Amino acid sequence: MDFKEELGTLKSQLVFDQKVDVPDDTANVVIAGLGGSGIAGRIFQELYSSKPVMIADDYTAPSFVSKSTLFIAISYSGNTEETLSSTADAKARGAHIVTISAGGKLYGQGDQNIRIPRRDLQPRSVTGYMIMPLLRGFGIVSEEEADGSYKLLDALDNDNIECLVHAKAIMEGSCIPAIFGSHPYKGVAYRWKTQFNENAKVLAYSNSFPELNHNDTMALAQTYLKDRFYFMVFGSESERIKKRIEVTQEITASQFNIIEPKGRTYIERMFYLLHYGDYVSYHLAVLRGADPADISLIERLKAELG
Amino acid sequence: MDFKEELGTLKSQLVFDQKVDVPDDTANVVIAGLGGSGIAGRIFQELYSSKPVMIADDYTAPSFVSKSTLFIAISYSGNTEETLSSTADAKARGAHIVTISAGGKLYGQGDQNIRIPRRDLQPRSVTGYMIMPLLRGFGIVSEEEADGSYKLLDALDNDNIECLVHAKAIMEGSCIPAIFGSHPYKGVAYRWKTQFNENAKVLAYSNSFPELNHNDTMALAQTYLKDRFYFMVFGSESERIKKRIEVTQEITASQFNIIEPKGRTYIERMFYLLHYGDYVSYHLAVLRGADPADISLIERLKAELG
Repeated sequence: MDFKEELGTLKSQLVFDQKVDVPDDTANVVIAGLGGSGIAGRIFQELYSSKPVMIADDYTAPSFVSKSTLFIAISYSGNTEETLSSTADAKARGAHIVTISAGGKLYGQGDQNIRIPRRDLQPRSVTGYMIMPLLRGFGIVSEEEADGSYKLLDALDNDNIECLVHAKAIMEGSCIPAIFGSHPYKGVAYRWKTQFNENAKVLAYSNSFPELNHNDTMALAQTYLKDRFYFMVFGSESERIKKRIEVTQEITASQFNIIEPKGRTYIERMFYLLHYGDYVSYHLAVLRGADPADISLIERLKAELG
Repeated sequence: MDFKEELGTLKSQLVFDQKVDVPDDTANVVIAGLGGSGIAGRIFQELYSSKPVMIADDYTAPSFVSKSTLFIAISYSGNTEETLSSTADAKARGAHIVTISAGGKLYGQGDQNIRIPRRDLQPRSVTGYMIMPLLRGFGIVSEEEADGSYKLLDALDNDNIECLVHAKAIMEGSCIPAIFGSHPYKGVAYRWKTQFNENAKVLAYSNSFPELNHNDTMALAQTYLKDRFYFMVFGSESERIKKRIEVTQEITASQFNIIEPKGRTYIERMFYLLHYGDYVSYHLAVLRGADPADISLIERLKAELG
């Protein structure tokens, strides 16, 4: 499948109706996942705060994991070594385990096992399949929002010329994309960074307001190589954050390209921003003659690690 | 005070003997703090995993915060607007509040209030005062380790020529520092990034193994501008991570400058790495003629935000 076509599958993933069963006695949630399979957890962590949600992106499960932990392991292949290892850890400590995968060794390890219905995509292209069971399970998406998001993604699939314009500007200067998000889209800003890495094969950087005002700000004003960075900043609904963006741009004499999210709710805007970044990174790949689907080195790394 | 002298105060902060009281019924911990005042929380979060530890780096406290939450608010000035706001939130929900500050509006807001004994340093230079009450309170540092760490820092204060060598290489190429950590020093890698931002006023990037193997890896092999990045990678005691570092370097044809941490335990190595980064960024500031103590723009931003 053509990679652009692969990106276009995101909207149809929103109808995936499996959902994580959340036991009544859940005291805390741990979501294990790395790379493309870790994104859903990072985004969810920001949208849901009624219980502590921690990310496990290493070989072990945190030692607080116990019977009252809901441990959700996400791996598209089902064979990510870090996730298999942390899941075994969590299982030994009696956690309630839910797996989300297309199969592999992970499938069947959980008290509940959610199977992603297709295996022919890249891990980073199945974010919809991974996040919908979380959003539905914790009751933070309505069918109306899923539908509204579908329409926004469909519109982007049909017209992403704005994304191409950003990609051209990045390519023209051979720039490092720098993406600045803010709550509740900090995870999405990180997602853009990873999409630039994997699709366009360029180094990229992300951070978020207000944290970046406490460190990047001085650098933005005085760093060398600044003209080789291309700044994309998510518009915010918060007056305080809006003001921070405006003042930061002014006092550091930076050119921020503001990306205004479309959508009626946080969930809709999240999906819109997510997909917008897919297309900017995709277009950049095409412009620089990189194959957006190629992940041969990550495969080679896995092989060499044996 | 000369900024180098200010950096040299870190070792004496290790004898600070205040400690966070941890109530017996603590179900989860939230540490609020931004920038230099947020670093202690990020580092602690990685060293302690017997309870969920979440970072609050925005205006609100997560909605799970309740009577069984230990909410630790850290702000050197005691006047960070985000932290004051999230602390008020947590207080309204009945959390057990501990403040760590040198005064300001935050001081006195807690059930326990820890006062940092000097006010003449920059927030990023009082990490010792901020982290020791956490490490002691949760029983994860011995006096022997505090003493061992003191000696390692003292040795670095007297001889940091290695740090100067890295700074010179960065300066020579006008490079963007890229710092790759791994557990339990992911927070320290982020700290280095922020020190490059604030001390040397250059943009910088950090990430950690194994997560970076799932995204940066493709970019490391094919990005433009790669010769303008200077890679510093923390040595690891884990065979698996060592192998990842080695293979990543090989398959992406990257030159990784390995920083081997000294010290007998995690805590000692953490302090050593932390301070090592202080000096690399300090030397880079001096080499490029930037004032490492200048944070005028952050002050201006605060003023403009009113």
